Amino acid sequence: MTKWVYAFGGGKAEGDTSMKNLLGGKGANLAEMASLGLPVPPGFTLTTDVCTSYYENNETYPEDMDAQIADGLAQVEKITGKVFGDASNPLLVSVRSGARASMPGMMDTVLNLGLNDETVEGLAKLSGDRRFALDSYRRFITMYADVVLGVHHHTYEDILENHKDDQGYMLDTEMTASDWETVIGQFKEATKRALGRDFPQDPQDQLQGAVDAVFGSWMNDRACVYRRLNDIPAAWGTAVNVQAMVFGNMGETSATGVAFTRDPSTGENEYYGEFLINAQGEDVVAGIRTPQTLTKKAREEMGETALSMEEALPEVYGQLAETFVTLENHYRDMQDIEFTVEEGVLWMLQTRTGKRTARAAVKIAVDMAETGQITRDEALMRIDPLALDQLLHPTLNPDAPRDIIAMGLPASPGAAIGEVVFNSDEAEAKAKAGHKVILVRIETSPEDIHGMHAAEAIVTARGGMTSHAAVVARGMGTPCVSGAGGIRIDYEAQEFSVAGRIVKAGDIVTVDGATGQVFAGAVDMVQPELSGDFGKIMEWADEARTLGIRTNAETPMDVQTAVDFGAEGIGLCRTEHMFFEADRLANFREMILAEHKEGREMALEKILPVQRDDFAAIFRIMGDLPSTIRLLDPPLHEFLPHTEKDIESVAKEIGVPARELMRRAHELQESNPMLGHRGCRLGISYPEIYEMQARAIFQAQKMVADETGTHPIAEIMIPLVSSAKELEILKGRIDAIAAEIGTSDYVVGTMIELPRAALRAGDIAEFAEFFSFGTNDLTQTTFGLSRDDAGRFLPDYVAAGIVEKDPFVSLDQEGVGDLIQIAVERGRVTRPDIKLGICGEHGGDPSSIDFCHRAGLNYVSCSPYRVPIAKLSAAQAAIRAKG
Amino acid sequence: MTKWVYAFGGGKAEGDTSMKNLLGGKGANLAEMASLGLPVPPGFTLTTDVCTSYYENNETYPEDMDAQIADGLAQVEKITGKVFGDASNPLLVSVRSGARASMPGMMDTVLNLGLNDETVEGLAKLSGDRRFALDSYRRFITMYADVVLGVHHHTYEDILENHKDDQGYMLDTEMTASDWETVIGQFKEATKRALGRDFPQDPQDQLQGAVDAVFGSWMNDRACVYRRLNDIPAAWGTAVNVQAMVFGNMGETSATGVAFTRDPSTGENEYYGEFLINAQGEDVVAGIRTPQTLTKKAREEMGETALSMEEALPEVYGQLAETFVTLENHYRDMQDIEFTVEEGVLWMLQTRTGKRTARAAVKIAVDMAETGQITRDEALMRIDPLALDQLLHPTLNPDAPRDIIAMGLPASPGAAIGEVVFNSDEAEAKAKAGHKVILVRIETSPEDIHGMHAAEAIVTARGGMTSHAAVVARGMGTPCVSGAGGIRIDYEAQEFSVAGRIVKAGDIVTVDGATGQVFAGAVDMVQPELSGDFGKIMEWADEARTLGIRTNAETPMDVQTAVDFGAEGIGLCRTEHMFFEADRLANFREMILAEHKEGREMALEKILPVQRDDFAAIFRIMGDLPSTIRLLDPPLHEFLPHTEKDIESVAKEIGVPARELMRRAHELQESNPMLGHRGCRLGISYPEIYEMQARAIFQAQKMVADETGTHPIAEIMIPLVSSAKELEILKGRIDAIAAEIGTSDYVVGTMIELPRAALRAGDIAEFAEFFSFGTNDLTQTTFGLSRDDAGRFLPDYVAAGIVEKDPFVSLDQEGVGDLIQIAVERGRVTRPDIKLGICGEHGGDPSSIDFCHRAGLNYVSCSPYRVPIAKLSAAQAAIRAKG
Repeated sequence: MTKWVYAFGGGKAEGDTSMKNLLGGKGANLAEMASLGLPVPPGFTLTTDVCTSYYENNETYPEDMDAQIADGLAQVEKITGKVFGDASNPLLVSVRSGARASMPGMMDTVLNLGLNDETVEGLAKLSGDRRFALDSYRRFITMYADVVLGVHHHTYEDILENHKDDQGYMLDTEMTASDWETVIGQFKEATKRALGRDFPQDPQDQLQGAVDAVFGSWMNDRACVYRRLNDIPAAWGTAVNVQAMVFGNMGETSATGVAFTRDPSTGENEYYGEFLINAQGEDVVAGIRTPQTLTKKAREEMGETALSMEEALPEVYGQLAETFVTLENHYRDMQDIEFTVEEGVLWMLQTRTGKRTARAAVKIAVDMAETGQITRDEALMRIDPLALDQLLHPTLNPDAPRDIIAMGLPASPGAAIGEVVFNSDEAEAKAKAGHKVILVRIETSPEDIHGMHAAEAIVTARGGMTSHAAVVARGMGTPCVSGAGGIRIDYEAQEFSVAGRIVKAGDIVTVDGATGQVFAGAVDMVQPELSGDFGKIMEWADEARTLGIRTNAETPMDVQTAVDFGAEGIGLCRTEHMFFEADRLANFREMILAEHKEGREMALEKILPVQRDDFAAIFRIMGDLPSTIRLLDPPLHEFLPHTEKDIESVAKEIGVPARELMRRAHELQESNPMLGHRGCRLGISYPEIYEMQARAIFQAQKMVADETGTHPIAEIMIPLVSSAKELEILKGRIDAIAAEIGTSDYVVGTMIELPRAALRAGDIAEFAEFFSFGTNDLTQTTFGLSRDDAGRFLPDYVAAGIVEKDPFVSLDQEGVGDLIQIAVERGRVTRPDIKLGICGEHGGDPSSIDFCHRAGLNYVSCSPYRVPIAKLSAAQAAIRAKG
Repeated sequence: MTKWVYAFGGGKAEGDTSMKNLLGGKGANLAEMASLGLPVPPGFTLTTDVCTSYYENNETYPEDMDAQIADGLAQVEKITGKVFGDASNPLLVSVRSGARASMPGMMDTVLNLGLNDETVEGLAKLSGDRRFALDSYRRFITMYADVVLGVHHHTYEDILENHKDDQGYMLDTEMTASDWETVIGQFKEATKRALGRDFPQDPQDQLQGAVDAVFGSWMNDRACVYRRLNDIPAAWGTAVNVQAMVFGNMGETSATGVAFTRDPSTGENEYYGEFLINAQGEDVVAGIRTPQTLTKKAREEMGETALSMEEALPEVYGQLAETFVTLENHYRDMQDIEFTVEEGVLWMLQTRTGKRTARAAVKIAVDMAETGQITRDEALMRIDPLALDQLLHPTLNPDAPRDIIAMGLPASPGAAIGEVVFNSDEAEAKAKAGHKVILVRIETSPEDIHGMHAAEAIVTARGGMTSHAAVVARGMGTPCVSGAGGIRIDYEAQEFSVAGRIVKAGDIVTVDGATGQVFAGAVDMVQPELSGDFGKIMEWADEARTLGIRTNAETPMDVQTAVDFGAEGIGLCRTEHMFFEADRLANFREMILAEHKEGREMALEKILPVQRDDFAAIFRIMGDLPSTIRLLDPPLHEFLPHTEKDIESVAKEIGVPARELMRRAHELQESNPMLGHRGCRLGISYPEIYEMQARAIFQAQKMVADETGTHPIAEIMIPLVSSAKELEILKGRIDAIAAEIGTSDYVVGTMIELPRAALRAGDIAEFAEFFSFGTNDLTQTTFGLSRDDAGRFLPDYVAAGIVEKDPFVSLDQEGVGDLIQIAVERGRVTRPDIKLGICGEHGGDPSSIDFCHRAGLNYVSCSPYRVPIAKLSAAQAAIRAKG
C-alpha cells in the first residue's frame, strides 16, 4: 500500500527534512520541526506523489487516499482534543500547498477551514469571542470562495464596503458581531447567486474542495510561468499540508509574523522580520497593513514608533529567538520562518532556508565559513553563481547630483534607470521593444510576474519587506523599493503624484533598491566594489577550481573589464568586429569588391596597420596572459549593405557604381549563410585575408614586446574547420608569415564547431595545438537548428516538453556534449597535451561549466561580466566532482 | 639503393603486370608481354616513384637515376645490336608516358628519338631508304619541338605546306629525299628562330629533354582536368617508357595498328581494330588518315574496298590473331592492343585491358562467365555500375519518322537530342544554363574534354572508331558519331552543311551513337531493353547481394519505372511534392495563411481526399511491397510566392489581400531555412498537418487492400527528428489516428539526418521501428555546409586537395559515415531488429553503397534509374566483403 499521507505534531512526525521531494519543502520542514520538539500545530501532508498520480490519472485520486486522510484527521483531533465538524468543539484547519521548490505567491491557501453556520457558534463559545468567530468565518468564506469556488474576492469586499458605508464605519475594527452576521448572510447569498448553489457547509466537502484547488493550482498559468522562469519541472508536483489552525487574531496577546535568522538583504547576522498584533498570517504577506519590526534595534534604526515584538511581547519574543538559534544550528543555514502567537503561545508554521540577495548570500556564506559553521566548500556551494551578476553591476555614484522624489523600503538592492510604466503587460511589451522600464504599482500580485521580469526595477506604494513585490524582486535580483507610501498612483491617468510633483508614464526615473530611494531622471552610476566578502569568495573559488577562466572580448574596454574580474586570458577575440568600425569598413568593402587578388591585397594593406594597432592594444592589457585570436569568420556579404537605399549610399561613399555593388552583394548572397562561405573557407578561397591578419598579429606582438618587455602570447585560431587538410594548409601559411617575420611565439589551433570537426578531432589534432569548442555553432549544426530562426518554434518545443532549456543557453550535454567528449578523447589520443577550451556562450553558464569540468577541458571562456560567475561555477564543479 | 629503372625485352623483363602502380599500365604490360615471349621491342621503364620524387623535390631527379638509365640503354643496345647516338648503327627510341590508369591523349609521346644530322645518315644506310630516314627525322623534329621544346607544330606544318605549294605537290608522298632535306634545314632554322638556340643534336640531351617533358606533362592543365574528372589522385604519378623504335613506315610490308580482342562497342567475340600500311602509330590514333579494317568480315560488313589486314598481310595477321588468344587467355579479359609490323615482322607495343561500352562490358562479362573463363562474381566485378546508366536510357523508336542528315561511325552508343553547338566552352556554358547540347567538331582534342562532358552527344567530321572523340566518349558513356565525313563545318559562320542542307548553332538534332546516324529535329525515343545479358547480370547481382534496393519516388510514373527495374520497395516517398501540384497548392496555401487551427483544419480537409488518391495510386503499383512515406518536410515558406509580382497574382487567385499574403510570407521567411522550422518541427507546431497525412495514408491503404486484395505496407517516416521526445509525441498522434481508423498495418520510423539524431539513436530507437539515413541533410549538418551555397567554394576545395569528391555525391565515410555507424550501433542496442536504410542521393552511388553494406544497413534507396546501378553495386559490395 502506498503511503499518501504523512502526519506530524505532538512532538513527533512521520516525515523529515530529507523527504522534501515527497512532502514538499513546507511539509518536510514542518515534520522536522515537530521532531525537534518545536511547537508545531499538528497536521498531515498529502505527498507530491498524489499530485503526480492525480495528473497521470486524468485528475483522479488514488483509491486509498481518503482513508489515509481520515486517519490523519483523527490523529490531529486526538492531539488537539477537537473534532473536525463538531458543532461544540470544532477542529479548524488550514490547507496549503508546498512544492519541492518554494514558489512564492504561486499556490493557493485556505485558512479557517471547517467553519460553517454551526461550528462558527462552537468557535464563538470556545474562544469566548463571537465577533472573532464571525470574523474568522467571513474570512474563510471570502478566501474559500475566491480560491476554491472561483468567485472573485471583490464580490465580498464590495458587500463589506457597502455595509461599512451604510453604517458610517471607516475601519473593519468598527464592525460588531452582528454587523459580521449580516454581512455573512449577504456573503452566502452572493455565493449562491454566483454559483447557483449554497456555500458548502459540510467540512469534509470543504476539505475535499480545498485539496482539489491546491492540486488544480499546480497547473494554473501563473504557476506554469513561474516554473518555466525558474526551471522547475512540472513533473515534480506539489504536496498539500492540512494543519490545525492557530489564531494570531485572538486579541492583543495574539500576533503573527515572518522572520529571517539573518538579514536577507545584506546578510548581516541580525534577526530580521515583521509581525502584526491581532492578525492572521496572510495580513503580513499581503502587505495591506504595514507591519511592525521584530527587534528594538531595527525599530530604532528605522525611526518607527510602533513597538517591536521584542518590546511588545518580550516573553514570546525570547522563545522565538531561542527557536532561531535552534533552527539555524540544526539547518546550518539562514532560515525564513513563519510563526503565530495565539493568546501568548508561540506556534511555528514554517521554516525554510531563506531566499537572500546575492550580497547576503555571499556575506552569510563567508561569515558561516569563518565561524566554522560550514566549510569553505560548503560556502562556495551555497552561492548561486548566476546571482553574482547582481554584485557586478553599477550602483549610484555617491557624488552624483540627484533629485529624490520618493522614499520606500530597500526591498531588493541594486540600482536601475528606466521609463515609468504602470502595468505589467506594457512593461513586457516595452522591454521587448528594447526599452528599459521601471514598473510602478500600488502593490504587485502573482499576475504581475511577467512585468516584474521585464522591468529593470520595481516600485510599490504599499507593502513591506516581505510583500509579494519584495520577495519576488529579491529572487529575481531586480532592484525594488516597496511601500513607498508617499506616492499616489493614478492608473487611469497613467501617472503618479508625490509631494505635489507629477511623474507620467514614460518619464525617466532612477531607483536605488539598496536605500529605498527613487529619483527623477537618470543618476550617474559607479562600478561595483569587488573586494570584501565577494573578494574572499573569488579567492576561495580560485583555490577550489581547476578549470581556467578566460574571456570572450576584443574591445580594449571589455578586455580590461575581464582582466579586472580576474580573467586568465582571452579565449575568443573576434577579429571581424574590428572590420565593422567606420574607419576600416570602407577598406574592407573595397577588398570584397576587388575582382582579383591584387586588388584585395591593396585594400588589405590599408587595413593591416589598423588591425596591428587593434591587436597591440589588446596585448598591452594582457601582458603575459595568452590571447586566442580567431581569424575572420563571417561570410563576406555581412559586410555589404543590403537594402537598395544603403547600397546606393555606400556606393557613393566608396566610389563604385551602385550597380556593381549590387551585383556583388547579390553574388555573395547565400541560401543558408550559417552553412556557407565563411570561416576557414574564406581563408582557403582568399589566402591574403588570413595572411594579413597573421602579419598584423605578429607585428603587434613584436611591437608590444619591445615596448613593454612582456611576452604577449598569441594563440591563432582558425574557425569552422571540418577537416585536417584545411588546417594543414592554413597553418602552413601562418607559419610561413611567422618565419618571414622571424617569430615563433605563437601557437595555431582551431575551433571545433562542426560535428565533422569533432568526429575528425584525431586528424585535426595533428595540426592543432589547441581546440576551442565553439558551442554556439556546434549546437546549431548538431541540432540542425538555426539560432536566428529557432525562436518561432522553440516555445512550442518547451510547451511540449521536448526541450527543457534553450540549448543555446545551457549546453545540450546529451547531444552536443557527446560530440565534445568524442573530440576530447580523439584529440588527446593524437596529442595528449592538447589544450582544450570552450568559447561559446555556454562558457558562462553554470551547468555547462560543470559539464566542461567533467569533460576534462582546460578552460572556459565567457563574456567579461560572466568571469566571476564562471569562476564560482568552476569551483562548484570541482567540489561536486570531489564529492 | 632504390631501383628507378626496370628493363624489358629479349624474352625477359624485370617487371610484370602486377607492378602497375610502380611501372604504370603500359610499362607493366610491356614487361609482362616480354616475359610471355611475345615480340616486344626492348626498352626500360622509369618508375612512377621517379615522378613522385621529382615533384616532391622541387622538380629534380634522384641522384642515382642517370646511372640506371645508362645501364638500361646499354642493355637495349646489347639486345638490338645498335648504339644510341652511333653515326653508323644508331639506336632510336620512343619515349612515352604510362600512368597507373590509362589517360588517353593526356600525356605526350616522342618517337624516333636519337636522330640527328649524323645518325639520320646511319639510319639511311641501314634501312637502305634515305627518304624514309629523312622523313623520320622531320617527324622527330616536329614532334620533339612541339612536345619538348614548346614550338607549336603549326610552325613546321606551314613550312611543309609552303614547300609543297612551291613544288606543286598535293601529297606528302610526292616529297623526295632532297625535298625533305630542304625542309629539315628550314625546320632547324625555324626552331632556332623560335628558341634562340639550335635544335638539340646530342641524343643524350634529347632523351633528357623528352623525359622532362613526360614528367612535366603530368601536371599540365589537360592532365589535371582529366584526373579530376576521373578521380585519379595526382600523387600516383606517371612512369616513362623508353623503348627501341620499330617502324611501321618502312614500306608496303610495314604497318601499324590498334586492335581489340573483342568488339569494344557491342562486346561481340570478334577481333576488332584498324591498321594503316606504311605508317607510324600516331597516324592511326590521330584520325588523320582513315584506317583499314583488321578482318575481312569487318571490311565486308562496312562495305569498304581497302584490303583488311587479314587479306593484305595474311601471315602477320595470323601471328597477331594467335597473340590475341595468348593475351586474352593470359589476362582473362578483353585486350586493347597496339602493334607495328616492320618489314613483315610483328612487334607488340602495348596491351591493356580494353575500355568498352557498358553494353560491351555486360556482354563480355556474361560471355566469359558462361564459357567458364571467369566466375560469376568476377563477371559482376568487371562492370562499372555507373556505366549501366547507358543501358537504361531510351533509344530511338524504330517506328518514329526521322529525317537523316548525316552518317558517320557508330563510335559510342546511345541516343540523344539537343541543340547544336560548335565549341566546348559554349557547350559547357549552355549545359550549365540547363540546355541540352550536341557538340559538333571537325575533330576533338584533349582541350575539348569539358565540352564533351557537358554535351549530350558528340559528332565529329573526322576520325575513326579509335579517334580521340570516340575513345573519350565511350569512356564517358556519351553517345558519339565520329568521322561523319559528309559534313562541312564552318566555325566562323556557326553552322555546318551536309548535302546542301544547313544546320545552324542552336538547331535541334538527334544523334544515334549506336548506328552513327544524325537526324534533324527530335526523334521519338523508346525505353531500353532490360532483358538478355543485362537481365542476366541483374539476376546474378540479385543472387550475390544482401542489401535490399528501394527507390525514392512519389509519382506513379517514377514508382512504376523503379518497380520495372526491380526496386523492392519505396525507401522515400516525399509527400511535399504532392502539394506543389496545381490542384492542391491553393488549398495548401489557404492552410498556411489560416490564423487558427480551425482554419488550417478546414483547408486540410480539402487536401485529404487528394492525398489519399496520391497514396492509393502508389499502393496499387507497390502491391505487397513496402512504401516508406515521409510526412511533410520543407518549411512552409517554400509554398508561398516570393516576388512581389507572384504575390499579387497568387493573392488574386486564392482571394486574400496581397498585403496579408506578403505579411505571412515575410513572417515565415528564415535566415537559414535548412536549419529552420521544417520537418517534424512543423508536425509539433501544427499537429493537424501530420494527422491529415496519416489519415490519408491509412484510408488509401484500406481502399487499395479492399480493391485489390493486396496488403499495402505503409512505413510512416518522420523527418528531421533530433530527440526521442519529438518522435514519441508524433508517433503517439499517428497511433491515435490508426486506432481511430482501426488499422495496425503500419510502422513508424524516422529519418536520421541530424548529427544529434545519430548520437541519440539509442533513445530514438525506442519509438522508431526503422531508421532511414537522410544523408543529404546529414552531410549538410555534419560539414556545416549548405548544398545550395557550397558551389561557390567547393572548386577551391577540390583545387586545394581538401575534398577528393563532392560529399553530396559520394558519402563522406570518415565523417558522415562515422555518425551513421554510431547510430547503427546505438540504435541496435535498443532495438536489435531495427530496419536500417539510406535514402539520400548517396543511395545510388557505388562507393556509398559499398559503405552501406559494410555498415550493416538493410537497404539503400535511390532514384528509379539508379536501381540497377544500386543492385550491381550492392552485389559488388557483398563480393568485396567476402574476399
